[in-house]
Amino acid sequence: MKIAFLGLGAMGAAMAGNLLKHGHAVIAWNRSEAPARAIEALGAAIAPTPAEAARQAEIAITMLADDAAAEAVTLGENGVIEGLARGAAHVSMSTISVALSERLAEAHAARGQAYAAAPVFGRPEAAAAAKLFIAAAGEAALIEKIRPALEAMGQRIFIMGERPAQANLVKLTGNFLITCVIESLAEAFALTAKGGVETARVQELLTETLFAAPVYKTYGGLILEDKFAPPGFKMPLGLKDNRLLQQAAEKLEVPLPFAAIVRDRFLAALANGDGGLDWSAIARRAKEDAGIERS
Amino acid sequence: MKIAFLGLGAMGAAMAGNLLKHGHAVIAWNRSEAPARAIEALGAAIAPTPAEAARQAEIAITMLADDAAAEAVTLGENGVIEGLARGAAHVSMSTISVALSERLAEAHAARGQAYAAAPVFGRPEAAAAAKLFIAAAGEAALIEKIRPALEAMGQRIFIMGERPAQANLVKLTGNFLITCVIESLAEAFALTAKGGVETARVQELLTETLFAAPVYKTYGGLILEDKFAPPGFKMPLGLKDNRLLQQAAEKLEVPLPFAAIVRDRFLAALANGDGGLDWSAIARRAKEDAGIERS
Amino acid sequence: MKIAFLGLGAMGAAMAGNLLKHGHAVIAWNRSEAPARAIEALGAAIAPTPAEAARQAEIAITMLADDAAAEAVTLGENGVIEGLARGAAHVSMSTISVALSERLAEAHAARGQAYAAAPVFGRPEAAAAAKLFIAAAGEAALIEKIRPALEAMGQRIFIMGERPAQANLVKLTGNFLITCVIESLAEAFALTAKGGVETARVQELLTETLFAAPVYKTYGGLILEDKFAPPGFKMPLGLKDNRLLQQAAEKLEVPLPFAAIVRDRFLAALANGDGGLDWSAIARRAKEDAGIERS
Amino acid sequence: MKIAFLGLGAMGAAMAGNLLKHGHAVIAWNRSEAPARAIEALGAAIAPTPAEAARQAEIAITMLADDAAAEAVTLGENGVIEGLARGAAHVSMSTISVALSERLAEAHAARGQAYAAAPVFGRPEAAAAAKLFIAAAGEAALIEKIRPALEAMGQRIFIMGERPAQANLVKLTGNFLITCVIESLAEAFALTAKGGVETARVQELLTETLFAAPVYKTYGGLILEDKFAPPGFKMPLGLKDNRLLQQAAEKLEVPLPFAAIVRDRFLAALANGDGGLDWSAIARRAKEDAGIERS
Repeated sequence: MKIAFLGLGAMGAAMAGNLLKHGHAVIAWNRSEAPARAIEALGAAIAPTPAEAARQAEIAITMLADDAAAEAVTLGENGVIEGLARGAAHVSMSTISVALSERLAEAHAARGQAYAAAPVFGRPEAAAAAKLFIAAAGEAALIEKIRPALEAMGQRIFIMGERPAQANLVKLTGNFLITCVIESLAEAFALTAKGGVETARVQELLTETLFAAPVYKTYGGLILEDKFAPPGFKMPLGLKDNRLLQQAAEKLEVPLPFAAIVRDRFLAALANGDGGLDWSAIARRAKEDAGIERS
Repeated sequence: MKIAFLGLGAMGAAMAGNLLKHGHAVIAWNRSEAPARAIEALGAAIAPTPAEAARQAEIAITMLADDAAAEAVTLGENGVIEGLARGAAHVSMSTISVALSERLAEAHAARGQAYAAAPVFGRPEAAAAAKLFIAAAGEAALIEKIRPALEAMGQRIFIMGERPAQANLVKLTGNFLITCVIESLAEAFALTAKGGVETARVQELLTETLFAAPVYKTYGGLILEDKFAPPGFKMPLGLKDNRLLQQAAEKLEVPLPFAAIVRDRFLAALANGDGGLDWSAIARRAKEDAGIERS
Repeated sequence: MKIAFLGLGAMGAAMAGNLLKHGHAVIAWNRSEAPARAIEALGAAIAPTPAEAARQAEIAITMLADDAAAEAVTLGENGVIEGLARGAAHVSMSTISVALSERLAEAHAARGQAYAAAPVFGRPEAAAAAKLFIAAAGEAALIEKIRPALEAMGQRIFIMGERPAQANLVKLTGNFLITCVIESLAEAFALTAKGGVETARVQELLTETLFAAPVYKTYGGLILEDKFAPPGFKMPLGLKDNRLLQQAAEKLEVPLPFAAIVRDRFLAALANGDGGLDWSAIARRAKEDAGIERS
Repeated sequence: MKIAFLGLGAMGAAMAGNLLKHGHAVIAWNRSEAPARAIEALGAAIAPTPAEAARQAEIAITMLADDAAAEAVTLGENGVIEGLARGAAHVSMSTISVALSERLAEAHAARGQAYAAAPVFGRPEAAAAAKLFIAAAGEAALIEKIRPALEAMGQRIFIMGERPAQANLVKLTGNFLITCVIESLAEAFALTAKGGVETARVQELLTETLFAAPVYKTYGGLILEDKFAPPGFKMPLGLKDNRLLQQAAEKLEVPLPFAAIVRDRFLAALANGDGGLDWSAIARRAKEDAGIERS
C-alpha cells in the first residue's frame, strides 16, 4: 500500500521502518529534518508538508507527540486533511484525546475521507521489533483495509469498536491501569520495606505468582531499583495522559478515584523536582510520605 | 513428620489431606466434628483439644478463620501452647494480623517453643491441588525444618525474612494488591462501558498484553460477568484483611491512599446489601457511581 | 463614573442596579434583550454591542456565565477590547479561569488598557442588597480608581494582590472551601444519622459552637432538609469551578486531595440524575454510599 | 451534689475546680498524686481508688486520656463500677470510643447503675472558664439530674439522644470536622501561596466573610503562622480520634473519604517527624506535596 507517515519520533521512525520492510511504499514527513533523512535512507520518499505526503496515499498515519501536534498536522495549514483524497483514510496512532479523535472523525467525514484510530501499547523497542499491541477502532471495512499496515507494525490488533474514539478511550484507560500498578506497588513496597522485608523478595513473590504480568515485572523492577532515569516515558506525558483520561471521564460522567490519587502523585512529583524522570517515579511519593529516605 | 493440624475449613482440610498424601502423620483438631471425621477417614488421628493435638507433634499448623480463632486455639484454654513440646514448632498459616503474629512469637519463645508464619495465596482448589503459594518467615533453620511440610501443601515457598510477622505483612500486602486490581478494573470497565466499548474486548486486550496475569484474568472475568455469587472470598473477609493491613500500616506509619479507597468501597458495598457476595463485588460501586444500571 | 456593564443575569442586573443607585452612569449590554430593557427602565443607557458600551466608559465591568462568554464578550467581534479607550479599565467580576484572566490581562495591556479582576462572593440576594464580598486584584492605583464602583456593589473589598489573576485564584479557592464544607457535613451527617442521632441536633451543636459560620448554617441547613431545588448554584457550575480550580492547581503543581474527592462527587451526582439540583446535592452521595434511603 | 471526679489532667482539674466553685462536694482521684493535692487545696476530698471515690457519690465523672484509661478506671480492679451505689450515675466526659461507651452502658446497667456520656468541646482555657460545650446523651431523666453539674463546667449543653454512645459519636464527628477544616485550609493556602497570594490576605477574606467561625480563625491562624508548638492537642491524639471515628464508621458501614485522607496526613506527619506537634501540623503535608519549602 501507499502510506503517508507523519511523525518520525522514536516510535514513528521504527513503525515507518517496519512498513518499508513489509514492502509498503512510504511517503514520510517530519517537522525536523534529520529523522526524515534517516527514513529516506531506508527507502521512503519525503514530502515537504503533511498535505503533500497525504496526497497520493491510500492511508495517512499520524504518530505525533500530543493533541496540539496531531491537530496541527491534520487540520492546520497544509495539513493531512487538505491533501488526502476522497475515500483515502487517516489512521491516528498516537495517544490523543477522545475529544480530538471525535473532531478528526467529523472533519474527515465532511470531506468524504475515512478515519480510524489505532493507538499502540509498547515502548520504542517493541515498535522496532514490530511487537506493538494495537487497539483499533473504526468502521469494520476500514479496519480490514488498513489491517496489513497495522500488522506490519504490531504483533496483534484488538478491535475496540466502530467509533474511532473508542480506541483512544481504551488506550488512555490502559495507561491509567499502568499507573494504578505503579502506585499500588509503590504503596506495597513502602509498607513492606518499613516492616523490614526486602523489596526484592516481595517483587519476586508477586511476579512469580498472581501478578506474573509484564507490567508488574517492568515497573516493579524500576521501583525496586529506584531507576527512573533515563525516562522511558516522561513524567509530564504521564500527567498529560491522566488529564486526557479525566477529561474523557468528566464528559462521560464517570468518577475515577484511583485516577485522582495518581494525578496528585504526578503533581507532587513535578512540584518536588522529579519532572525529568520516568513517570514511574511517582512511586517516590509513597516512600516520602512513609518517611523513607532516598537511597 | 508428626504434624498437628488445627482448623479443617475448606482450606485446612485440603492442606491436611496433602500432608497425609505425602506420608506425614497428622493429628487433627477442629471445632466442629464433621470435618474431623472426614480427615480421620483419610488416615488422620483426631485429638479432643488443640493442646492434645500439639502434644506429640513436631509441628503444629494452624489454619483458622481469623485473629480471634487463632488466638483462642493457640493461647486459650487447652490451646496449642499448652501442649506443644519445647523445641517443637507452631506454624501459623492463616491470614492473621501482624500484631497477633508478634504476640504469638513472644508467647512461644517464652515457652521455648519455635514459631513461624507461613500464610498462603490460593483458593480451595489450589489448596486441594497442592498448588498454593506460601510466604514463609521465621528463623532460617526452622524454615528448613518445616519445608517438607510446606512443600507437601504448596507449589512454591517464598522466604520473606527471619521475623515471622514479616510473612503476615506480605500476605496482607498481597491481598491489598488484589483489591487494587479489582478497583482499577472496576473503574476502567465503568469508563469504557460508558464510552460504548464492550467490556469483554477491553478485558481481552488487557489480559493478552501487559496485564497477562492470573489476577487480572480471574477478577476481570468475575467483574465482566457480574458473577459474585457464590463467593470465593467473602466481602466481610476482604474488609477484615483491609483493616488488618491498615492497622499494620498505622503502626509502621505508612499512608496507603489506595487502601483507603478500597476500604470505603467495602463499606459502601456492605451498606448497600452486597455483604454476601465475593469481595470483588466492590466493583459494583464504580458502576453505581457512574450511573450504570445493574444488569 | 461612566461605567459599561456587560452581562445582566441575576447577579449582573442587581449589581448594575446598585451602580445606578449610587449615581453612576451605566451603559449596559446583554445578549438577550429583556434584561437590557429592565435596566434601561432604571436609568441605564443600552448599547448594541460590548464595544459600543465600552467606548465611552471609564470602566467596563463584565459579569458573565463562564469563560466562553467572558472571552467572547471581551476579545470577540465587537468585544470590549475593541471599544475601550486607552487608559480606561476592564474589571472582570465573574468567576473565570486563572488562565483566561491572564490572557485578558495581556490583551488589554497590549492595547494600553487597564485590567483588574474583582470576582464576588454572594448569591443574587446579596448582590441586590449590595452585600457582596469582593476579592480584587490589580495594580494598586487601578484598584483605588475603581473602588467607588466596587463599593456601590459590595459590603467589603479584599485586595488579593497586584496581578489580576490572583483574585480569580482566590475566588476559585473560596468555592473549593465551600465544597469541602458541603462534603464534610455530608459525611458527618451520614455517620451520625446511621448512629441514630437526629441531624438537626448535630447541625445545631455545630453551628452554635466552633462552626458558627454562614457557610455551615446555609449548607448544613440545605443538607438537613434535603432541599436542593430550586438550585441557588447549579451542579454543573459547581463542577465547572472545580475544573477551573484543578486546572490552576495543575499549572501551579499543587495536589488537592479534597478537591479530587469533591470532583468525583460532582460526577457521580450528574451520572445519577442530580444535575438539575443545587451543587450542595453532592451531599446525597455520602448518604447513598452509606445505604441511607432517600427520604 | 456529691460528685466523684476521676482524672485530673489539664481538662479534668479545671472542670473539677468549677464544680467546687458551684458548691458541689467533690471527691477526687488521680493516678498521680500532685494534681490530687492541688484540687484538695481547693476543697476537694481525695480518695485512694476510683471505687472509694465513687462510693458515696451521686455522680462519678471520668475525664481520662483514652479508652484504656477509661476502661481501667471504670471496670478494672477498684474501679468506679465497684464503688458506685445502685441508682447513682457514671458520667463519662472524655473522648472515648463508641464501642467502649456501649460496653460501659451495659456494665453499669447490669449493676443497676446509671450511665451517661457527656464529652466536651474546648481546650483547657475553655475548661477553666467554664466555657466548654458539652454534647450529652443518656436517658432524659438522668440528663436532667446531672444537668447542674454539667452547667457548672460548660456554657451550653446539647442533648444528642437517649443512648450514651450517641454523644461519643457526635464528639468524634466534631473532631473529624475540625480536621476537615485544617486539611481544606492547608490545601487552599498551599495553592494560593504558590499563586503568589499572601496567605494572611486569604485568611482575612475567609474569616471575615463566609467562614467567620472560631474553627477557621483558630486553625487558619496556626497554619498561617506555621505555629504548631507547643501543641494544644497532640498529633498522636488526633490520629487516635480519627481511628475511633473510623472504627465507629466501619461498624455503622459509612464510608468517609475525607476522613481517609486526613488519616493518611496524620501517618505521613508522624513518619516525617512531626509527631510532637499540634495536630494541625498535618497542614505541612499539603505544603510538602506542593514543593513549598519549610520556612
